[in-house]
Amino acid sequence: MRYPRFLATCLVLGLAASCAPPVPAPSGNPDRITQASVINALMIGRYDGVNTIAEMLEHGDFGLGTLDHLDGELIILDGRAYQVRGDGAVVPVGPEWTTPFAVVTPFDEDGSFACPQVAGLTALESRLDEALPQRNSFVAVRIEGRFASLKLRSVHRQEPPYRPLGEVAESQSVWTREGLSGTVLGIRSPAWVGGLTVPGWHWHFLSDDRKVGGHVLDARPTEGRVRYDLCHDWEVLLPRSREFDQADLTPNLSRELKRVESARDPAPPRGPEGR
Amino acid sequence: MRYPRFLATCLVLGLAASCAPPVPAPSGNPDRITQASVINALMIGRYDGVNTIAEMLEHGDFGLGTLDHLDGELIILDGRAYQVRGDGAVVPVGPEWTTPFAVVTPFDEDGSFACPQVAGLTALESRLDEALPQRNSFVAVRIEGRFASLKLRSVHRQEPPYRPLGEVAESQSVWTREGLSGTVLGIRSPAWVGGLTVPGWHWHFLSDDRKVGGHVLDARPTEGRVRYDLCHDWEVLLPRSREFDQADLTPNLSRELKRVESARDPAPPRGPEGR
Repeated sequence: MRYPRFLATCLVLGLAASCAPPVPAPSGNPDRITQASVINALMIGRYDGVNTIAEMLEHGDFGLGTLDHLDGELIILDGRAYQVRGDGAVVPVGPEWTTPFAVVTPFDEDGSFACPQVAGLTALESRLDEALPQRNSFVAVRIEGRFASLKLRSVHRQEPPYRPLGEVAESQSVWTREGLSGTVLGIRSPAWVGGLTVPGWHWHFLSDDRKVGGHVLDARPTEGRVRYDLCHDWEVLLPRSREFDQADLTPNLSRELKRVESARDPAPPRGPEGR
Repeated sequence: MRYPRFLATCLVLGLAASCAPPVPAPSGNPDRITQASVINALMIGRYDGVNTIAEMLEHGDFGLGTLDHLDGELIILDGRAYQVRGDGAVVPVGPEWTTPFAVVTPFDEDGSFACPQVAGLTALESRLDEALPQRNSFVAVRIEGRFASLKLRSVHRQEPPYRPLGEVAESQSVWTREGLSGTVLGIRSPAWVGGLTVPGWHWHFLSDDRKVGGHVLDARPTEGRVRYDLCHDWEVLLPRSREFDQADLTPNLSRELKRVESARDPAPPRGPEGR
């Protein structure tokens, strides 16, 4: 509701280029990780946004997810929100935009170590799992570094009637970039989260110049630092709508979800338009 | 650890009868339901308390669960905590006692209706499900009324090495009381909660004179009022221990859980000692 006024203020002040929300001071429990809705709602095609970005920023300055209408990948880094569109463009996200699924936390560093220089994302995850054995807690990880290569993807905005995520993901954009500096953001959730969020690792990337980003399908770090934040309190914000109440969210879609979120060799990969 | 000192203080002050914590003013989100740990941890025998009762009362004035060492049924009503021991006795719970599993919420009434006069708990649940179709939200219910009969159970304090809950529940106490006035406390969780909490309805009872209580296996209400509180935000407080981190919480124990929590015809039922 207040977005027009916010936008007007930005324009008046000549700050149109920095309309992304300002760095917030997330209130409440720093060890809490908060998610909007549940992943099974997204799996069955509930792409309409339910929580505003401003609301999510109140729960954390770090996170990932998607946007209303499944319009690309959402990245929240240092309290600013970014959209990676299906065409690969990175744009700031306004506070009134909404998300149908996102996971955020105040990034409250619990420790750090040098990033292992490994051949790919699977090897990286193994090394991180060894370093972070708290398998029944949530953990947020940010890796600022250089990457010899990154395989990224994004999804295209959908219109109702929505198809299930498994079908939509078949038309995702996938592209590879080399020699980038930036931040890989990861959230690891316990194996027992079922259809509530993505079990295991879930990775997004944003370059230092904020021009390249996306959901990470593979990554080859050459240098960098892993900073992590253990989260022991997990909050799920459930949509307050008749549509949500009536959805059957019980099917076990774990295999489908794994394919959608971590299919590291999708066939055939399609690049974003214009790249 | 500090309970003996607390008890001593109560005795010194002659306040033994009012050792239950005072009515708190739960802070934070009134639509949040908060749980200590996850039910699968209890299922596999993690009975050591992880959160204090004082801490749980900060999250809500209404709720149910169990106590350290699986020492009976926990009831939180109007901000006071009660234990129903395995022998059926109801005693106040001190703020320093701990719980390995409990679910609490600030009871913030969203509506009420006359309690259906039905023959048993299964019929009551069906009628409540019709009246409260929000199947993907949590709902807390309190029924103050008269009950022609109540079939109650409690469990006995365990000592390490702990056996799984399915085994322990076989030695539960089960007893039936007739013509009681009191409050039935219920929490309904969505079907998709998996091994995190009890899916569907979970009921405890406390009599008006605070002398009878327990986990409800059956109930026949003759009059009363149903008050309900819809909860859209769900928070899980995860234990911060190596033991918890190392536990395998992924098995599907739903059938076992259903048997433990709602076995309405356990055979053979055993009454509490001295009743």
